[in-house]
Amino acid sequence: MTDMAEVQGGRRAGRRGGGGAARRAERTAPKIEAARFIERNIPNFEILTAEAIEIIEYNADTILEEVGVAFVDNPAALDRWREAGAEVKGERVHIPRGLARKLCATAPAKFTQHARNPERDVEIGGKSLVLAPVYGPPFVRDAEGGRRYATMEDFRKFVKLGYMSKWLHHSGGTVCEPTDIAVNKRHLDMLEAHMTLSDKPFMGSVTEPIRAQDSVEMCKILFGEKATQAPHMTSLINVNSPLTFDSTMMGALEIYAANMQACIISPFIVGGAMAPVSVAGTLTQVLAEAMAGIAYSQLVRPGAPVIFGAFVTSIDMNSGAPTFGTPEASKILWGAGQLARRMSLPFRSGGGLCGSKLPDAQAAYETANTLNAALLGGVNFMLHSCGWLEGGLVSSFEKFVLDADQLGILHSVASGIDVSENGQAMDAIREVGPGGHYLGCAHTQANFKDAFWRSDVLDYRPFETWSDAGAPDSQALASARVKRMLDEYVAPPIDQGIADGLRDYIERRKASEPDAFG
Amino acid sequence: MTDMAEVQGGRRAGRRGGGGAARRAERTAPKIEAARFIERNIPNFEILTAEAIEIIEYNADTILEEVGVAFVDNPAALDRWREAGAEVKGERVHIPRGLARKLCATAPAKFTQHARNPERDVEIGGKSLVLAPVYGPPFVRDAEGGRRYATMEDFRKFVKLGYMSKWLHHSGGTVCEPTDIAVNKRHLDMLEAHMTLSDKPFMGSVTEPIRAQDSVEMCKILFGEKATQAPHMTSLINVNSPLTFDSTMMGALEIYAANMQACIISPFIVGGAMAPVSVAGTLTQVLAEAMAGIAYSQLVRPGAPVIFGAFVTSIDMNSGAPTFGTPEASKILWGAGQLARRMSLPFRSGGGLCGSKLPDAQAAYETANTLNAALLGGVNFMLHSCGWLEGGLVSSFEKFVLDADQLGILHSVASGIDVSENGQAMDAIREVGPGGHYLGCAHTQANFKDAFWRSDVLDYRPFETWSDAGAPDSQALASARVKRMLDEYVAPPIDQGIADGLRDYIERRKASEPDAFG
Repeated sequence: MTDMAEVQGGRRAGRRGGGGAARRAERTAPKIEAARFIERNIPNFEILTAEAIEIIEYNADTILEEVGVAFVDNPAALDRWREAGAEVKGERVHIPRGLARKLCATAPAKFTQHARNPERDVEIGGKSLVLAPVYGPPFVRDAEGGRRYATMEDFRKFVKLGYMSKWLHHSGGTVCEPTDIAVNKRHLDMLEAHMTLSDKPFMGSVTEPIRAQDSVEMCKILFGEKATQAPHMTSLINVNSPLTFDSTMMGALEIYAANMQACIISPFIVGGAMAPVSVAGTLTQVLAEAMAGIAYSQLVRPGAPVIFGAFVTSIDMNSGAPTFGTPEASKILWGAGQLARRMSLPFRSGGGLCGSKLPDAQAAYETANTLNAALLGGVNFMLHSCGWLEGGLVSSFEKFVLDADQLGILHSVASGIDVSENGQAMDAIREVGPGGHYLGCAHTQANFKDAFWRSDVLDYRPFETWSDAGAPDSQALASARVKRMLDEYVAPPIDQGIADGLRDYIERRKASEPDAFG
Repeated sequence: MTDMAEVQGGRRAGRRGGGGAARRAERTAPKIEAARFIERNIPNFEILTAEAIEIIEYNADTILEEVGVAFVDNPAALDRWREAGAEVKGERVHIPRGLARKLCATAPAKFTQHARNPERDVEIGGKSLVLAPVYGPPFVRDAEGGRRYATMEDFRKFVKLGYMSKWLHHSGGTVCEPTDIAVNKRHLDMLEAHMTLSDKPFMGSVTEPIRAQDSVEMCKILFGEKATQAPHMTSLINVNSPLTFDSTMMGALEIYAANMQACIISPFIVGGAMAPVSVAGTLTQVLAEAMAGIAYSQLVRPGAPVIFGAFVTSIDMNSGAPTFGTPEASKILWGAGQLARRMSLPFRSGGGLCGSKLPDAQAAYETANTLNAALLGGVNFMLHSCGWLEGGLVSSFEKFVLDADQLGILHSVASGIDVSENGQAMDAIREVGPGGHYLGCAHTQANFKDAFWRSDVLDYRPFETWSDAGAPDSQALASARVKRMLDEYVAPPIDQGIADGLRDYIERRKASEPDAFG
């Protein structure tokens, strides 16, 4: 029985007002294992030559200067740019060669995002890799219920699964869109879920500046006044590629930057539609957009924490469908990582991305291709690392736990190779000799528990045992795991005053405006 | 209508003796697309530091000198070693520090394996990657018939699928074990299938020295006397890890080396059982074993073409099952690749490896993890690149075509990033500008056909279309593709005299000894 479980038991008893509930909680409270964020002890894979980097960086500056970027419906942004030395024509900002990169230099190379459980704090940048779940789907899917619109109840389930997933460091943001709650109010319920059902770090709302402000206010309730002195949220600011920064996203960015909250500034590109069909051309545009957005964040507040983002998919030119796990996406990810590191900025890309409609082999090939590329490409913050299905239209319960399990592999690969004396194992090789067997030797006995990564959901049974158990496929195994995790879930303890404060804020804000849908 | 199809039509007519058959063949003969072997235009991923390499290389030499390697039931081998300067005690060969590496220096850094269609010749070594199918399973599986013992008819189907798979460069060897043919005769039928049903390069038999000799003799019939002047087979010589070289495998190696045929010398290791549980310890043993085996090939015939192999899986310490697509396997693959390149030798590792019993998400995660590791790890020859299921116990028809399709991704990733003016796409970015759309621009129109890799089997349809089509999962899509490919298959043309010569040889050899099973 851990300290945490004891606190949980007491807390639940207090809230439910019954000693029987407390005892039940004590009995069932599982030990929550949570891995620390990944610190890579392996090199990055660098696909761009020095010459290629030079060309792309030069071209990106050419775009910023000659083509310019549009800051739409945002006179204050245009003023900031003019003051910084850009030439503004209408809403088009032309940034002289070198200026954007210079402005980006005040952004930190690395920052800590704080969680309400300090053991869950994450460092973003440098050699780190922080894993966050799927973001944005309006639908959910599971084997039992099929594909359907997501609800707030689904949202809470995904937050619970995220909290229970040991390789996941971050609770994420819109793990699915709770379509049963009004568009102008659902961010409040979503934030409450992340704040109370998990103790991992989370993301704020970006769909309107006022919702970003709500996110900041709720953080003040949760964390106190220190909330705005350091990053307690990392939020997703998409660029409207090509080269356009709309006032909604920029309005949210302005609020977060002013409050020292972190933003991912992320070109969102379906290749061939929002960027050229070529890898180098796309990388050039990604760099120009990321530099412009990050430079703008530093105009709002020098030193505001930001992440250089790149979300790029390829497209099936037959059907127009975005495609995932493709070679072009891997190359762009690797190249963008190099470009971000050249600016000493944290880098976001990758994820458990796939186009498949089911958590089947297609989904897994596409996902694994992307996860592997992201690990070796030096990604520091990986959104969508589990649960993404059908091109991001669907949050899949089964895929969430299958992907989350695969994230353990990233941890283990990143740890590198131990060449200590124990790692060298020369005693074992001497002890066993030609034709011998290692299972019983002293070195194996001393090391076997941690020697090999082991899946918690995939099937390692012999054919006959597996067959007798009904020959379950991965989806069936994952279904059972989802049910078990949700059954075993116990909320992390929270100060009741804080929980009540959040609820009060939400109720007040909900009462202040009528429901809006769409 | 291609020239090849015309020849095929004529040939089939000749064999079947009917103009109607010829016309049918003409109508149905599909254009066989076959990609050239991969030439990497990307860097290798190098996980071992210079210090780690130094430690492992030093330790490997320590093993060879102090522990030694066993050459069992092979007095001639012991004589060769003694003559070369090793100390032989019983069957144990102690190789003085530095000697093995020095002996390996006569092996070529790169060689060409010739196919009967010269367009299918493959270069093995340097920056190349040659892809060969699954090898060895006694069972086959498909959606319709489930899991069952493999037959010669299954074998032929896999050879046909391999011939039709455009990203596969090599016809392989034992694509499944034809268990309905006597053990001492099945190699003859297998070789005939590779030689007549495909025109891609193939592997020889290694299960007895006399079967290696049969393979050489059949190559002489197929290729004429030039057969033994250059590599026309690449065959798989497994080391009995730890540190043991049995007389069956060494006997086959001796025949192939003497006849200038290529061998993969490959430690076959289930980590924790046949090698230490640590990555560095396993790499050390792999290096010692590969050096000893390759050095021995050069004692038989200096200059004989060989490949440094490493087949290493991890183990599930709960069940004892070998596991695939694991982080330990990736690390060992990357490290072994570095060690092989330090010796300027071609490197074999990787494959579409998985432990799953079905071609489901588990199979695809594990497979993609391995394929990605192998591509970036500098593998030159990849056996098992498609069709492997259930830890190598099963050749799966559906997984064969799913994996073979994924191999297209390796081709495209390996091509690197084009930074020519067309690749830079600055005209497109200027033409489209902020807020525009690239689908219609001149650069997209000129480049879209080759811009993005596209799967030939995965599903890119919108949800509704896919749903109306019965919501097929990857296995169902693959099943349909297998049927279509086998229906469309037309054998490549072969000189009838050669085909008859092979048949005569096989019949004579089969008549010369009674059937043996097991």
